[in-house]
Amino acid sequence: MSDVQDRKRFVEDLTDQGDDFSRWYTEVVRKAQLADYAPVRGCMVIRPYGFGIWENMQRLLDARIKATGAQNAYFPILIPESLLQLEADHVEGFAPEVAWVTQGGSEPLEERLAIRPTSEAIICRMYSRWIESYRDLPVMMNQWCNAMRWEKVTRLFLRTTEFLWQEGHTAHANHAEATDEVLRMLEVYRSFAEEDLAIPVHAGRKSLAEKFAGAEMTYSIEALMRDGKALQTATSHDLGQHFAKVFDITYQDETGARQHVWQTSWGASTRMIGAVIMSHGDDQGLKLPPRIAPIQAVVVPIWRKDEERAQVRPFVERVREALGDRVRLHVDDRDQYTPGWKYNEHELRGVPIRLEVGPKDVTKGAVMSVRRDGRQKESIPLEALAERLPALLDEVQRAMFDAARAFRDENTATCRTVAEMEAHFVARRGFVAVPWDGSAAFEAEVKEKTGATLRCVPLDPSPWKGLAGPGQDVGLFARAY
Amino acid sequence: MSDVQDRKRFVEDLTDQGDDFSRWYTEVVRKAQLADYAPVRGCMVIRPYGFGIWENMQRLLDARIKATGAQNAYFPILIPESLLQLEADHVEGFAPEVAWVTQGGSEPLEERLAIRPTSEAIICRMYSRWIESYRDLPVMMNQWCNAMRWEKVTRLFLRTTEFLWQEGHTAHANHAEATDEVLRMLEVYRSFAEEDLAIPVHAGRKSLAEKFAGAEMTYSIEALMRDGKALQTATSHDLGQHFAKVFDITYQDETGARQHVWQTSWGASTRMIGAVIMSHGDDQGLKLPPRIAPIQAVVVPIWRKDEERAQVRPFVERVREALGDRVRLHVDDRDQYTPGWKYNEHELRGVPIRLEVGPKDVTKGAVMSVRRDGRQKESIPLEALAERLPALLDEVQRAMFDAARAFRDENTATCRTVAEMEAHFVARRGFVAVPWDGSAAFEAEVKEKTGATLRCVPLDPSPWKGLAGPGQDVGLFARAY
Repeated sequence: MSDVQDRKRFVEDLTDQGDDFSRWYTEVVRKAQLADYAPVRGCMVIRPYGFGIWENMQRLLDARIKATGAQNAYFPILIPESLLQLEADHVEGFAPEVAWVTQGGSEPLEERLAIRPTSEAIICRMYSRWIESYRDLPVMMNQWCNAMRWEKVTRLFLRTTEFLWQEGHTAHANHAEATDEVLRMLEVYRSFAEEDLAIPVHAGRKSLAEKFAGAEMTYSIEALMRDGKALQTATSHDLGQHFAKVFDITYQDETGARQHVWQTSWGASTRMIGAVIMSHGDDQGLKLPPRIAPIQAVVVPIWRKDEERAQVRPFVERVREALGDRVRLHVDDRDQYTPGWKYNEHELRGVPIRLEVGPKDVTKGAVMSVRRDGRQKESIPLEALAERLPALLDEVQRAMFDAARAFRDENTATCRTVAEMEAHFVARRGFVAVPWDGSAAFEAEVKEKTGATLRCVPLDPSPWKGLAGPGQDVGLFARAY
Repeated sequence: MSDVQDRKRFVEDLTDQGDDFSRWYTEVVRKAQLADYAPVRGCMVIRPYGFGIWENMQRLLDARIKATGAQNAYFPILIPESLLQLEADHVEGFAPEVAWVTQGGSEPLEERLAIRPTSEAIICRMYSRWIESYRDLPVMMNQWCNAMRWEKVTRLFLRTTEFLWQEGHTAHANHAEATDEVLRMLEVYRSFAEEDLAIPVHAGRKSLAEKFAGAEMTYSIEALMRDGKALQTATSHDLGQHFAKVFDITYQDETGARQHVWQTSWGASTRMIGAVIMSHGDDQGLKLPPRIAPIQAVVVPIWRKDEERAQVRPFVERVREALGDRVRLHVDDRDQYTPGWKYNEHELRGVPIRLEVGPKDVTKGAVMSVRRDGRQKESIPLEALAERLPALLDEVQRAMFDAARAFRDENTATCRTVAEMEAHFVARRGFVAVPWDGSAAFEAEVKEKTGATLRCVPLDPSPWKGLAGPGQDVGLFARAY
């Protein structure tokens, strides 16, 4: 079989979502060359196309984080075991999944060093040295880095031993300011997910059973994947004074008295790439939201004879010049593939807009645009392209969000009892809103009978007005990744 | 002692370069809050001001790298010992300085995993899977990541156990293309160092004694620090087919035959921040080149009475508005410090331009700019600021490069024999150009008698016309970091 046929089959062989969603996911990740398995258990290689998505996410989220006043810094990847052990809940939560360095060069180490599963411990140690006065507060730092958790079951992007993320760590003079920060960052994540990733989310607080090890309270944003399972997409933690007390992080207040600081931490990881894939993809492959797509529009030139080629080529150059830096454009001028093959490949790779340029288009002085999200076609005159294409990308971005929200809302139900939930989850998936009195017993019963867990108590319960009685909250449950 | 006096002394206590350069260096790094020691041997914390420099470096260098056609990707930090051992020179060079992970969660690992000292081994394993045909070549990937070498003697930025860097790895169809790539990247580093960091460098090849473990040939850029010692600032390696053969990285050529690829790798690290500090700093502290300075201009408002304050404050706002995004501006409106104290602090932190705004300036409708590099003053009318300040920053950038080059050239001598070099290094430091026949014995003798090593054989030997005889090259020697 020739190389070309080989690759064609490679695209056509994609498993349907309805047949096996999990297999569809892994195939899409690998065929679209987003990531590959590494020769180390549970680790992945992020290939250039996948990393291009991550770079766009980083740029957009980083700008939102900096707009809150936080600054980037970098803390060491290694954490001495004795530091990790200071906060009891924290070590209990993380110790089982830590990778340990025990040898440096030819010397066995006197103390084991953890590869950071998260950086509270090392950052708190530094904060205890740096913070002296109320004038030093708030301290708001963020770092983009790798982290590691020795997971038993792993999946590309969703749960890997090593992952990339940003983790923010702040210290404040009182609890009110810390709480404001926790919610401010939750809102940063919500707006980033909805506006940049086109993923609708519910923002809310977790139950005590699901909170971060060492936190007073954890908040998260929760999205719904196309198989009806929920995915926690980012978290924001109110750390209270748990770490401040054991790491002795104090400041002198305006009266000269020493006080412990109040802290927060918040993070989002390469897992978000998994959320994008599973929120938008279909049986043809990926659908990337324009704001984070490495290639926003791909030009596919079409010719059969050499004279057509001589006609099309210069026109494609004019398209490129007309667009300049306005759009992340790629011209696919490979000779060894047919246009049809290229259409399939770029659909698989989720490129938001395809621009077809054949002899007829050249004659009309236009390109034929085809949207990935709904396949809508539109002939765009060359002179209108620089204005129309960015607008069209905005329309795609908005339409993708609307489609994902419609899917999410269709797959959100209301129940009043565990029995109703049990019946619901026999036939359906998605979110179920239920009145919840805050009891762990209820959570445990639901989990046992339905497999669903409490995703969050939404900050905005208005869609479920009247559901929760006195002393109750709306609990949003789902089976989850 | 009050907090204010404490901090004032903190700035004034900076050691002079001439008294103890090494102490000056460490003090400047810590007092300017670029970095701090971490509670793990040999590791550093990069604080926001230092990380701001790194972010600017990354942005500028990343754009230069991408302009060559390379794409970013991410490979795992852990490398199985068996992979690291495949290339004999490579393992011999790096094994003594590897940190080993031996435990994952509660399980002892069957095979030790190295924290990457550099990523050739893991990347080559992936390339052997991905590369099939000549159509796949060249493969040009880069990653920004952390890496680790278990160094015995460490110094903030210059040599730390963990460091941040970019490492590029490319594969080509033949040696000529690989060599072009090695030299193209060397030129990227040269132009980045000279244009963005304002550091003049010599670009050239290393001796066999100094080449990268596993390379066919190593090239580097070499800069001169203000204490007269050289610093290798970035390297570019011709890997030949050393790795391709042991990792079995082959492609099918146009005739259908299988061939091994030819590879390169190239890297630059947070060490470059050390190069910036030691190339430009003086007894008052840092001098940051405007292109990478986190703060390019700082406004210091000056008032004594409240009515002056009422006059100055709105004017400062107009300054801020006039500049917009054109300049990375910071307004230092802290009440607890005097203007004089702020001048000292911003000089210590190397801010390229200070803008003083007092009642007299407001009356004139102007700000008084003071350059960090040469202390030149210039009153700039508010309406001219948006144009003048960016131009002034360009002048500072250029002047800093010229000053560093003049210093470098004053500290470059020519010798003809080892005896001459010995005499030279008794009294002086800096670069010494000498005719070199390529012999390792000569290198060893120079090192023993003078402490200087061969920094590189410059690609451009024209400054030393006539120095090298037939069969000789110009060798550039220096004592080095």
